Parts: sequence; C-alpha cells; structure tokens
Amino acid sequence: MKIKIGICGYGNLGRGVESEIKKHNDMELAAIFTRRNPAENLKTNSAVPVVHLDHAVLWESKIDVMILCGGSATDLPVQSPQLARLFNIVDSFDTHAKIPEFKEKVDSSARAGGKCAVISAGWDPGLFSLIRLYAGTIIPAGTTGSFWGHGVSQGHSDAVRRIKGVVNAIQYTIPQDEAIKRARQGEAAGLTTREKHKRLCYVVAEQGADLLRIEKEIKEMPNYFADYDTDVIFITLEELKKNHSQLPHGGYVIHAGETGDGNKHLIEFTLKLDSNPEFTASILLACARAAFRMHKEGMSGAKTIFDIPPIYLSALDDDEAVRLLL
Amino acid sequence: MKIKIGICGYGNLGRGVESEIKKHNDMELAAIFTRRNPAENLKTNSAVPVVHLDHAVLWESKIDVMILCGGSATDLPVQSPQLARLFNIVDSFDTHAKIPEFKEKVDSSARAGGKCAVISAGWDPGLFSLIRLYAGTIIPAGTTGSFWGHGVSQGHSDAVRRIKGVVNAIQYTIPQDEAIKRARQGEAAGLTTREKHKRLCYVVAEQGADLLRIEKEIKEMPNYFADYDTDVIFITLEELKKNHSQLPHGGYVIHAGETGDGNKHLIEFTLKLDSNPEFTASILLACARAAFRMHKEGMSGAKTIFDIPPIYLSALDDDEAVRLLL
Repeated sequence: MKIKIGICGYGNLGRGVESEIKKHNDMELAAIFTRRNPAENLKTNSAVPVVHLDHAVLWESKIDVMILCGGSATDLPVQSPQLARLFNIVDSFDTHAKIPEFKEKVDSSARAGGKCAVISAGWDPGLFSLIRLYAGTIIPAGTTGSFWGHGVSQGHSDAVRRIKGVVNAIQYTIPQDEAIKRARQGEAAGLTTREKHKRLCYVVAEQGADLLRIEKEIKEMPNYFADYDTDVIFITLEELKKNHSQLPHGGYVIHAGETGDGNKHLIEFTLKLDSNPEFTASILLACARAAFRMHKEGMSGAKTIFDIPPIYLSALDDDEAVRLLL
Repeated sequence: MKIKIGICGYGNLGRGVESEIKKHNDMELAAIFTRRNPAENLKTNSAVPVVHLDHAVLWESKIDVMILCGGSATDLPVQSPQLARLFNIVDSFDTHAKIPEFKEKVDSSARAGGKCAVISAGWDPGLFSLIRLYAGTIIPAGTTGSFWGHGVSQGHSDAVRRIKGVVNAIQYTIPQDEAIKRARQGEAAGLTTREKHKRLCYVVAEQGADLLRIEKEIKEMPNYFADYDTDVIFITLEELKKNHSQLPHGGYVIHAGETGDGNKHLIEFTLKLDSNPEFTASILLACARAAFRMHKEGMSGAKTIFDIPPIYLSALDDDEAVRLLL
C-alpha cells in the first residue's frame, strides 16, 4: 500500500512535488487541490483528479498526507491550521519570526483531528535548521553563521516588481566571500547584515521610465534592501527571459568552535541548487513519509524536523539503513 | 538534577569526554571506570572516583549514562553488550562491517536491562551517516561520496608501527582533490579506492634499519596500504614529536543528484577537526543526553543516531530550539 499524497496549491512548489513523487516507490499522487474555480480548469501534468479546496473534506479517507504548497504570507497561515484537522500535513512555512505562533495554531488543530503536521520543512527553515541544531549541540563553544545564495529570492523579486515603472525583475541574494571566511574563523556572531550578503537586481523598466528613481527606490526600500549593498542592472525583457528564468538557490551553514585547550573545529554544510522549488518539494516528500509513520504510531500535533527521527524520513528500513548508510 | 555521566576507558577519547562535559550545564561527571589494577593508580584530570570496571555494577543507580571510550577492535565488542544491561550507554563502535551483528547483541542486552544504548555515535559512523541518510533520502536520484582526511588514522599508524625496524610512525589519510571534484559532479559511484584517498606515512626507523624494505612492507601491506598510493617519509623522533603529535581529522560527505528535467543539486558536508578524540567525545555527550531522555520515555534497546529525534540531543527545549534555530 503506497502512501497517498495530496498536493494543495499548484504553483512552482506544487509542480515540484508532482514531479519528484515519481522518485519514491512507496508514495503515489492521489489528487491535486486548488482554489481555482472551476477546479477542472487547472491544467496539470498528472492524470489525478483536480479538486476544489472547498471539497477537501470529501477526501479525508483518500489522502494519507496533504502537502501544502502555498505561500507563507497568506496561504499557509489559513490553510495549515484548517487542513491539519482533516489530514496529516506537511508545509514549508518560512516566516521565521511567526513560526512559534503558527506552530501553536497548527498544533491545536492537528491534535483536535488526531493528525500529524510537519511544519516549516524546507531547506531553511528545515535542513539548515537541522545542521544549526546538530552543530551547535555538539560544539556548544562556537558560533554559527547561515548564508543564502547565490539564489533568487522570490519575495525580493516581487518587491522590486511592485515599483512604478518596473515591468519585470529578478533579485539574486549573494553571500559575501569575506563574511564566509570570517564565519569559518569563528567570527559569525560579529557580522552585520550588510557584511553577510549583497543583493543584485536585474530590472526591466518601462520605456521612458526614470531609471535613477527606480534604482533609488530599490536601494532605499526598508526591510528589503536598505540594509544591504545592492546593485541594480537594467536589462531587456528578452535578456530576463533568456538568462534569468531559473530559480536556483543554495547557501552555507558554518559552525566554528573549540574544544579542550583551544582545538578548533569547523562544521560546514553547503547546498547548491538548480531548482529551489524542486529541492524544497523533495524535502516535503521525505517529511510526508515521516508524518505518515508518526501518525501510524499514534502521534499527533505539530512537529518540526527537529522532532523527526531521521530514519522516519527514509524509504529504507532500519536494517538497510544501518548496513548501507551508517 | 544533572545527568550523571560515567566514563569507561581513559584514553584519548575518555579524556575528551572528561574535558568536554564541562561545556554542558545539564550534565556532570560521576565516575571514571578503568580496567587498570588497582584502579586508584589511574591519574585523571577530575576529582571524581576512579572505579575498577569489575565494580561497575555497584554504580548502577549512580550513573545515568555510561560513555564507553574503548576501542572497536577488542574493548567495545565485550563491554557494550555487558554494560548495556546495567546502564544506558553510548559508544562509538566503528567497525562498519560488524555493526549489524554488534547492534543485535547490544540490543538484546539493553532490552533485558530495560536500558537505552546508542551505538556507533562518532562522526563516521555517526554525523557523516546522518548526512548520507538525509541527502540520499531527499534526492534519491543521486550518488554519495564520503571522504576522510586530512587526518591521522590510528589503525593505519599502528599497522606501520608493527613493522620490524620501525620505532614510531604516524599515518595521514588524504582525500584526493580530483575525486572530490568528480563526486561533486555526480561521479562518486565510479571512484576507486585508489582514486579517492592517498596515504602518507611519517616513519621513524631504527638506526641502520633497511629503509627500502620498510617502505616496501608498508606500501604492499594488504587491506591497509596495497590498494592506495602511499608516500613514505622517514623523519627523526624529534620531528615526529614536534610536528605530528596532534590527532587532526575531518572529511567530506558529498551528494550530487538531480530533480525534474535535469536540475542538478549538490549537498555537501565538511568537517575540519583539530582533535578527532575531542570532537568524537562531543558527539558522544550529545548522544548521552538523548539516551537519557529516550530511557526516561520508556524506550529500551540499541539505537543509532538514525533513531534519535534531533531535539533529544540538544540542551534547548522545544520552544527555544524553534525560536533560535529553526
């Protein structure tokens, strides 16, 4: 019996789950849920039913784990607590500051439904969080630095696109080599926001737009750009489509610390990802397997990747994992 | 109430546990156990009792977790099953091929005693195994390469020291840059033993010893050196003491794979360790915390790091970990 997966939300991330589920013999896609009306208008790459989200309740017994692929700004804060009452769920809620509050809401909902909800399960939060936990736990006398990029930040790209006179834009987050070096030397704690990353925007402007004004608006935008050194490069729509249509990302977690009499230790984790949504989807699928197993064992409530015994993520059984991977 | 730790075996690793336990506010060293006779002859850096291993049974109620710091060749195969009946234990058994059999023995003994035993909890097996599991689970369409070094292999150093005419020696395992590059390109599976690592031996020979014969014996030694390119450099005892008295180590786990339509993903984990024993001791201590908690929750039997929810290793509570690290 395969684990029956539902996809809720069919953007880049949902399509990633749809494509990557094929890599897992123990799972199968059961249905795709959408808010589109009528749902049937949604063209998907699979032959599975497309269902309006309002009818999700009819699928309670036909979905083992629902993977929520909506955004953290408006979709997940509503959908995760709602669906966690009906289904085991996995999401990639990534608004760091709001995770505790979000977790509490999902938790009470999942407990009420007797379901298991794995939240914030992408690569950061998610895989990077795990490395921060393992590294900091093992070498407590140390400092951890997290760096992101080179990669496309969707939130920052959207922010630039909202500026008057901008037709389209893409924003790359770029970690600073000098900051990475300093993190490796144990100086991560002292790095400023500006020292850690710079930002690079490729912008397509409307004909005749005031380029200096656009550049200034970007560079001075609070929260998004004001605290960073930002480069703005104006390009044509053709160039944007040709050279910037991928969603690569990646980053570093670097923990440097000491033991004994000044012995230094460096723990470093790096990701280089051609497709941020497909990689995130891959993590969500592994966490779906874990949610299914934890639920089967009688657990309920909101879990993070910190709570999941690593073996629960794997398709291998205990003995295979010990033999092949330990 | 602090977690009361016992150290069994007072070599490099035992002294590492003794030094690193000070970094953890929730643990305290209760006693050191030795096979030395009389035990009191053992000079330690702590004020705790030194107890002969034969009297360990008298400490059953006074030790929460016993950390076994003996060797995998002869100590742990006997001690781990024996002590797992009396105590929650943690060990770093690292004879990869024998782990399944070892695990079974420790498991039945720990179950009989109602105790929790975390086995093979160093950095490889251990931390590297975790990365292999996470990476291979998330990106199943990929290959993983593990590389060790630069670092001192104690087993290989010992093997050289046993050669006639050798006064002392130290062996460094060195990963090959070209092999690491190929692993990053997804070619880890095709790499031969010789391609992955080379070996470098610093040897102090007896006055008048036949150096050519020693070099030949090293390079042709089956299992240890015959499958590798090995450099042998003869040095003086003074040079050995001055330049090669540390036990650094480290390595790489590299997983390269694909999602979707040829999108490449690279997951890489690196360790650079000044002191192999102190770093291993640090992992054992985190696992001791986990063993204590799992036992408290009623679990028993042999566990590996694959079975441990990451949060169990940490001194942080759930909420703190989510807030600070997720």
